[in-house]
Amino acid sequence: MTPDEFRRAGHELIDLIADYLDHGVEAHSVLDRVAPGDVRAMLPEHPPAEPEPWEAVRSDIDRVVLPTITHWQHPNWFAYFPANVTYSSVLGELLSAGLGVQGMSWVTSPACTEIETLMLDWMHELLGLPARYRSTSERGGGVIQGSASEAVLVAILAARWKATAGAVNEIGDTTRLVAYTTSQAHSSIEKGLRIAGIGSDRMRIIDHDEQFAMRPDALAAAIEADTQGGLIPFFVCSTHGSTSSLAFDPTPEIAAVCAGSGVWLHVDGAMAGIAALEPELRWVNQGLERADSYCTNAHKWMGVNFDCSLFWTADRTALLGALSILPEYLRSAAAETGAAIDYRDWQIPLGRRFRALKLWFNLRLDGVGTAQGRIRRDVELAQEFAAWVAADDRFELVAPHPLNLVCLRIVGDDDAPTDELIGRINTAGEFHVTRTVLDGRSALRVSIGAVNTDRSAVQALWQALTT
Amino acid sequence: MTPDEFRRAGHELIDLIADYLDHGVEAHSVLDRVAPGDVRAMLPEHPPAEPEPWEAVRSDIDRVVLPTITHWQHPNWFAYFPANVTYSSVLGELLSAGLGVQGMSWVTSPACTEIETLMLDWMHELLGLPARYRSTSERGGGVIQGSASEAVLVAILAARWKATAGAVNEIGDTTRLVAYTTSQAHSSIEKGLRIAGIGSDRMRIIDHDEQFAMRPDALAAAIEADTQGGLIPFFVCSTHGSTSSLAFDPTPEIAAVCAGSGVWLHVDGAMAGIAALEPELRWVNQGLERADSYCTNAHKWMGVNFDCSLFWTADRTALLGALSILPEYLRSAAAETGAAIDYRDWQIPLGRRFRALKLWFNLRLDGVGTAQGRIRRDVELAQEFAAWVAADDRFELVAPHPLNLVCLRIVGDDDAPTDELIGRINTAGEFHVTRTVLDGRSALRVSIGAVNTDRSAVQALWQALTT
Ligand SMILES: Cc1ncc(COP(=O)(O)O)c(C=O)c1O
Ligand SMILES: Cc1ncc(COP(=O)(O)O)c(C=O)c1O
Repeated sequence: MTPDEFRRAGHELIDLIADYLDHGVEAHSVLDRVAPGDVRAMLPEHPPAEPEPWEAVRSDIDRVVLPTITHWQHPNWFAYFPANVTYSSVLGELLSAGLGVQGMSWVTSPACTEIETLMLDWMHELLGLPARYRSTSERGGGVIQGSASEAVLVAILAARWKATAGAVNEIGDTTRLVAYTTSQAHSSIEKGLRIAGIGSDRMRIIDHDEQFAMRPDALAAAIEADTQGGLIPFFVCSTHGSTSSLAFDPTPEIAAVCAGSGVWLHVDGAMAGIAALEPELRWVNQGLERADSYCTNAHKWMGVNFDCSLFWTADRTALLGALSILPEYLRSAAAETGAAIDYRDWQIPLGRRFRALKLWFNLRLDGVGTAQGRIRRDVELAQEFAAWVAADDRFELVAPHPLNLVCLRIVGDDDAPTDELIGRINTAGEFHVTRTVLDGRSALRVSIGAVNTDRSAVQALWQALTT
Repeated sequence: MTPDEFRRAGHELIDLIADYLDHGVEAHSVLDRVAPGDVRAMLPEHPPAEPEPWEAVRSDIDRVVLPTITHWQHPNWFAYFPANVTYSSVLGELLSAGLGVQGMSWVTSPACTEIETLMLDWMHELLGLPARYRSTSERGGGVIQGSASEAVLVAILAARWKATAGAVNEIGDTTRLVAYTTSQAHSSIEKGLRIAGIGSDRMRIIDHDEQFAMRPDALAAAIEADTQGGLIPFFVCSTHGSTSSLAFDPTPEIAAVCAGSGVWLHVDGAMAGIAALEPELRWVNQGLERADSYCTNAHKWMGVNFDCSLFWTADRTALLGALSILPEYLRSAAAETGAAIDYRDWQIPLGRRFRALKLWFNLRLDGVGTAQGRIRRDVELAQEFAAWVAADDRFELVAPHPLNLVCLRIVGDDDAPTDELIGRINTAGEFHVTRTVLDGRSALRVSIGAVNTDRSAVQALWQALTT
C-alpha cells in the first residue's frame, strides 16, 4: 500500500467511522443474528496470493463486518456496560498506531511515559482522588492498564510481594496467603488470584447484605479465623459498582478492618468509579483515602475507546518489587537515577502502546464537561426508568440503583417469565439487555450509557418490556 | 467534537501519518535528547476547563510529541528490534477503534472472534506451522495476545494446570513445580513464572553452548535431578531467536528430552519466528511439531502495529482449564454448545479489541509478499554488514547471525571501548543501537529491519562505527 493509497483509504475510513458513530449504527439491529461459523463461511479459507485493492477490503467491511458485529455503540445498547467510543479518542488511537512508538520504558519514548503520568494526574484531579495516589506524592502513582482485569492482577501481585516481604519472588510459596471478596465481585478477581497462585480454596467469599454490599463484620471474622488458623490474610477486594447490580461495598468500614491486619485493600471501581467526574457523584470515592490501590475504566462510561483502564497505587514500591526485572538490554541511565518511570515495571506485558494520547485528546477536544453531561443524563434516565418499573406491579426492582444500572424481574416465585422476557428482547434484536443472577434468582439488567442513547430509546425499551 | 470536526481532524491526521511514515520521520533524529521531566514541563499541570480546538492539539503534536518520542520507525533504527508499522495495519487499528466492539466472547461480537480465528489459520499456513496448532485440528488453536509476555504467561498457566491435573485452580500450590530455560531467554519468561507463583529458586538456568543455544544434555540432567529430588518439572521455554543475539535453542533435541518427562514445551519465537513467512527461512520452525505452544510477534518484524502477538497451542484444553471462569453475566448459549470460541478464556484480560482487523488488512492490502521482501532484504543487509565487521580487524563478531541481528565488539580484553562506542553513537542521536551482555562481556547489537531502512542507512551506520 502506497502513501497515497493510504491517504485515500484513510480518509474514506474516517468518513465511514464518522457516519457510523453519528447514527449510522442505527441502520443495524444492535444484536445481529449469526450462528457460529457464519462469519468464517463468508471469507476465503486461504490468504490472498497477491495484494488486493482497498475497494475489496472496503466492500467487505459492509458485506462481512458490519452485519456480524454486535453494535456496542448503538443507542439501544443496554447490555453489559457502556463501552463508549468518542471521536476524540479514536483520533488518539490513530496517532498512537501511526507513530508506532514502544513505551515499555521512559527511554524508549519519553513522551509516551510522561504524558501518561500527567494524564493520570489530570484524571486524579478530575475524579477528586486522595493525594496519596498522585504521581507527585511520596509513594504513589498511576498508570494505564489494558483492563481492570490486569489492574487487579497487578494489585494482587503487589499485595503478595508485600505480605511475603518480597520472598515470593524467590520462593514462590503462596500457600498460606488468603484473599477476601464477595460473590458480587467481578470474575477477574478470582481469575487474577488464580493466576497469582492463590487457589479458590483460599479465596473467601464474604457475606453480603440485602443490598449486595460486603458485611464488614463478616470480613473481620473471616480474617480473624484465618489468622488464628496460621494463614496470612493478604488481599481484600472491595467493589465500587459490582457488575451484576452496581452494588458498593462499604470501603470505609472495610478499610478499618484491613488497617488492623496489614492486608492490601484494592478497590475495583471499573465501571462506576468514573462517575466521580461529576462532582455530585463523588460519593463513589468513599474510603479510597485508606485503600492501597484503585482502578476505574476510562474505556467504559467515560468514552475513551478500549483499552484505557486507570490504575493508581499508594505503594509503588510494592508494585515495582513485584514486577520489575532488569536484563542488560533494558538498562538505561535515566531509569537508574530514579528520575524516570519505566512503566513496563507497573504492568504484566513488556511492550506498551501510547495509550495516553487517546485520553489526552479526549480531555482536550471534548473536555470533561462532555463526559459529565453524559453521566448526569444517564443517571437521570436510569432513575426515571426505575420509577416506571416501581410503578408497574408486574415488575419489581431487585437492587439499589443509584447510578445508571437498573435490575428488575417479573414479580413471582418463578424465574421463567423473567428469563423468557430477556430471551424475547434479545432475540428480537432491537435492544440488547443482559441477564444476571442475584441471590440465586434471575434478573434483567438495564445498563444505560451509550453515547447516542436518549430518553426515547429508554422509553422504547420500556415499551418493549411491557408489551 | 462534532462529526464534521472529526472528519476534518481525521483527514489531517491521516495525512500527518502518511507524511511521517513516508520519510517525514527522517526530519527527526532517531533518538531525541530530552531529560526526565522535560515533556511534562511543556504541558499544563491541570486539565483544560473548556474544550480546545483541534488546531491546539494538532500544534502540540508538532511542538511536544514529535520532538520527544524515540522514533522507532526511523530508517536509522537499529536498536532493540523492529517494531514496524505499515499503512494497512494502521487502517485496521483505526477501524477497530471506531467500531468499538468488545471481543471478550463470541456472542459479544461474532466477527471479532471468527476473523481472528481465521487470521491465525492464515498465518499458520503462511508460516508453515505444524497441523496440530490449526483451529480445525482436534486439540489446537490460535489467538492474538497483546504481547509475547502475555503469551508465555498463558503457556505457563496451561502447563501449571496440566502438571497438577487442574488442582492448582483450587489448591494454588505451586511449590514443587520447576521451570527450565537459559540465561538467554527473554526477561518475560522469568516475569511470567514469577507471576504464576514459580519463584526464581525453581527456575533453572540451563547451560548454553558457545552459540548461546541451550544444551539438551544439561536440560536432561537438570530435569532428572529435580525429579529425583521430588520436584515436578513442568515447563521448558525454548527460544527461537533470543533477544540478545537471536540464538536458537535446539528444539528438536529439547522436545525429545521433554517427551520423556511430560513437561510442557513452549517455544518463544517472538522476534525471529516471523522469518518463516519467507520459505527459505522455514528452518526457524524446527521442532515446533513437538512443542505444546508457540508464539511469534506480528508486531515486530512483520509490520502489524503493536499489539499483535500470535500464539498457538496444541492443547487448548489445558489453556481453557487454566483460564476459564464463567459467571452468570457472561454465559451464552453459543459458547455452551461448544460451537463458538470465547477468547476471554485464552488470555489474561477479559476485554479485548478487534485486533484481527489489522492483520487482515495487512495480509490483504500489502500481501505477504511485502513482508517476505522486507525479511529477505534485512537478512541480506545483515549478512553484508557482518562481512564488513569480519573483514575489519578492530572488530569481532560475537554470535552467529543467521537472520537480521549482528552482535559485535571491539577486539580486546577490555569492554570499555565497546561501551564507549555505543554511548557515542547513541549520544550523537543519528543512529540508535542497543548494548547487551553476552557471556559477561559487552556487545553492540545491530538489529536491521525498519520498514524504510536500506543499504545506505546500514552503510552510514558502519561509517559512524568505524570513524
Ligand atoms: C466491576 C468490574 N470489574 C472488572 C471488570 C473487568 O473489566 P475489564 O474488561 O477492563 O477487565 C468489569 C467489567 O465489566 C466490572 O464491571
Ligand atoms: C525473544 C523475545 N521474547 C519475548 C519478547 C517480549 O515481547 P513483547 O513485548 O511482545 O512481550 C521479546 C521482545 O523483545 C523477545 O525478543
